[in-house]
Amino acid sequence: MTDTFNHGGDWFGFEIKHGKAPLDFSANINPLGMPEGIKKAIAFSILMSDRYPDPFCRELREKISHKESIPSAYVLCGNGAADLIYRSVYALKPKKALVACPTFSEYEAVLTSANCKTERYFLRDKNDFTLDEGFLDEIRPDIDMVFLCNPNNPTGLVYPRAFLMKILLRCEQVDALLFLDECFGDFLDEPDDYSLKREITSHRNLIILKSFTKMFAMAGVRLGCCFCGDTGLIEKIRSSGQPWSVSSLAQSAGLAALDETGFAEKTRRLIKAERTWLSVNLKKLGLRTINGQANFIMFRCDAPLNSILPQKGILIRCCGNFAGLDETWYRAAVKTRQDNKMLIEAIKEAAAHG
Amino acid sequence: MTDTFNHGGDWFGFEIKHGKAPLDFSANINPLGMPEGIKKAIAFSILMSDRYPDPFCRELREKISHKESIPSAYVLCGNGAADLIYRSVYALKPKKALVACPTFSEYEAVLTSANCKTERYFLRDKNDFTLDEGFLDEIRPDIDMVFLCNPNNPTGLVYPRAFLMKILLRCEQVDALLFLDECFGDFLDEPDDYSLKREITSHRNLIILKSFTKMFAMAGVRLGCCFCGDTGLIEKIRSSGQPWSVSSLAQSAGLAALDETGFAEKTRRLIKAERTWLSVNLKKLGLRTINGQANFIMFRCDAPLNSILPQKGILIRCCGNFAGLDETWYRAAVKTRQDNKMLIEAIKEAAAHG
Repeated sequence: MTDTFNHGGDWFGFEIKHGKAPLDFSANINPLGMPEGIKKAIAFSILMSDRYPDPFCRELREKISHKESIPSAYVLCGNGAADLIYRSVYALKPKKALVACPTFSEYEAVLTSANCKTERYFLRDKNDFTLDEGFLDEIRPDIDMVFLCNPNNPTGLVYPRAFLMKILLRCEQVDALLFLDECFGDFLDEPDDYSLKREITSHRNLIILKSFTKMFAMAGVRLGCCFCGDTGLIEKIRSSGQPWSVSSLAQSAGLAALDETGFAEKTRRLIKAERTWLSVNLKKLGLRTINGQANFIMFRCDAPLNSILPQKGILIRCCGNFAGLDETWYRAAVKTRQDNKMLIEAIKEAAAHG
Repeated sequence: MTDTFNHGGDWFGFEIKHGKAPLDFSANINPLGMPEGIKKAIAFSILMSDRYPDPFCRELREKISHKESIPSAYVLCGNGAADLIYRSVYALKPKKALVACPTFSEYEAVLTSANCKTERYFLRDKNDFTLDEGFLDEIRPDIDMVFLCNPNNPTGLVYPRAFLMKILLRCEQVDALLFLDECFGDFLDEPDDYSLKREITSHRNLIILKSFTKMFAMAGVRLGCCFCGDTGLIEKIRSSGQPWSVSSLAQSAGLAALDETGFAEKTRRLIKAERTWLSVNLKKLGLRTINGQANFIMFRCDAPLNSILPQKGILIRCCGNFAGLDETWYRAAVKTRQDNKMLIEAIKEAAAHG
């Protein structure tokens, strides 16, 4: 095992190297932390965790179904959203897939592992990383699966609904499945304006992926879900992995998360204000900053932040291993004002001396 | 999703149907329950579970390595042992596999999901379900993977070490991988007499699977691990699933489990005594009972226990969906004397009126 990691959030690796926990901007977790109600629910469920978890997550799916107004038969839970990316690919066994890059690298990781040929469509710096109509032409009859992340990681940019509908219909024409990762959708100012979840009943070739870990700051607990109107496919995805993937602790955490009222709204207000503040201040430093709408910001910096910032105790995500980006691009989570100020100060110093 | 389940331990399904929790003999969990030290460790780790789990389980693997005297590079952790069964098959992509039946059904489930042809070698009632030399002849050059469970689920029988070595060497000859599931090995009176874990350094075609969930009664938490002397293969298995499969809670639970002293020995003493008691009493009822050595017992009964026992609040595992068995076979976990007495009483009544 190489112990090198191509994602953010490796606080343990940071601790080994620097002897202390980082101020972590490399993972995009809600800066408000895990709600007390969820902590209590997990603690309570320890007492029942000698038993196997409910393999069908019946109570949790019922509650998600109710909250999202989606039939529970169309809901599948996973050991984090990433679990469902792997299961979906193993279930569908695509021969050829299309991915818009730069994006979350796990799509390609599992496609490669499943011997699927992957076509990359590059979002370009000169176009501000937006997705253009040319993408539609790449959805050819030999494409089995199309991966999109909305808002996209690491750019934070949203794809407009109308354009996503065009993509969905084009996928339908060529009998391809659209795998739409909305894991960061809850952080958008107006989540429902961008989600395609209302389309799953009328478009059976659509999978929507959602995460509990980011909004509810429970990344260490692992919980995600997906929606799909094709119950045969849902069953295939379910049986492409072990029956007990979602722990009892995660199921309890998810039930408690759905009881939280106002937490997501409070988070969105904070993120909106702090994203703007961070963006303004990055631009003040003269750095090219992408105007994303998620709970993270992508920007360019010539100073080697990845080696300088850790010395100041700060962990940031260098985008050098994202296909379509290089090491001058960085992604930083939007955190609280106090933390964000520390980041800006650290970057300022690094840029001055770098 | 069909919500029908082909394993034991579906207490939630029982609750829905019968309105209360079962006395559950259908899942093979340590009747002593989860040690307090593990409960505390999980509760403590909730506070850190806003972060992603360590994707490499570095601390846990180090501690397992130390305890088992196996290099940490040969250790891989999973979201329960079942996770590692799926990952291993997806990593190895076997074309043809050999399984000794009846056994744990997830081997065949994932082999089918991965389009692998599965050959079944039947352990026969007339041979008391022992594995004979004929199995060696079935390990032909076109076999890529051989699955064995020791002690076997659901029979509870152990395969002698000397015979397992013959199988391992035969696998080596034909370039097949031996996937040896020792998940219930910790419950044997003398675990080290039966394990092949000492062979992994000299035989790179061997994977040993272990579970924390059964011995430490943490099935709802999910934690398993495997050992393999081929680090390239370990890396392939790791990357055949998401990076964050083992939750922070499970990693903390595992670390605490390894601190338990005397718990496994205490469990083995209890299991040995109670297995004998259950076996004697099942035989007294005139039921054919397999002399297994695990923490569960397989027996035959003509009365339809699966419909009668739940009315008495007892859940038992009917073996009707194990390849090679029929609905007259049952598997019951070995529990405490009080619980075991209730089981025997219930079976006695059922057999009298059934």
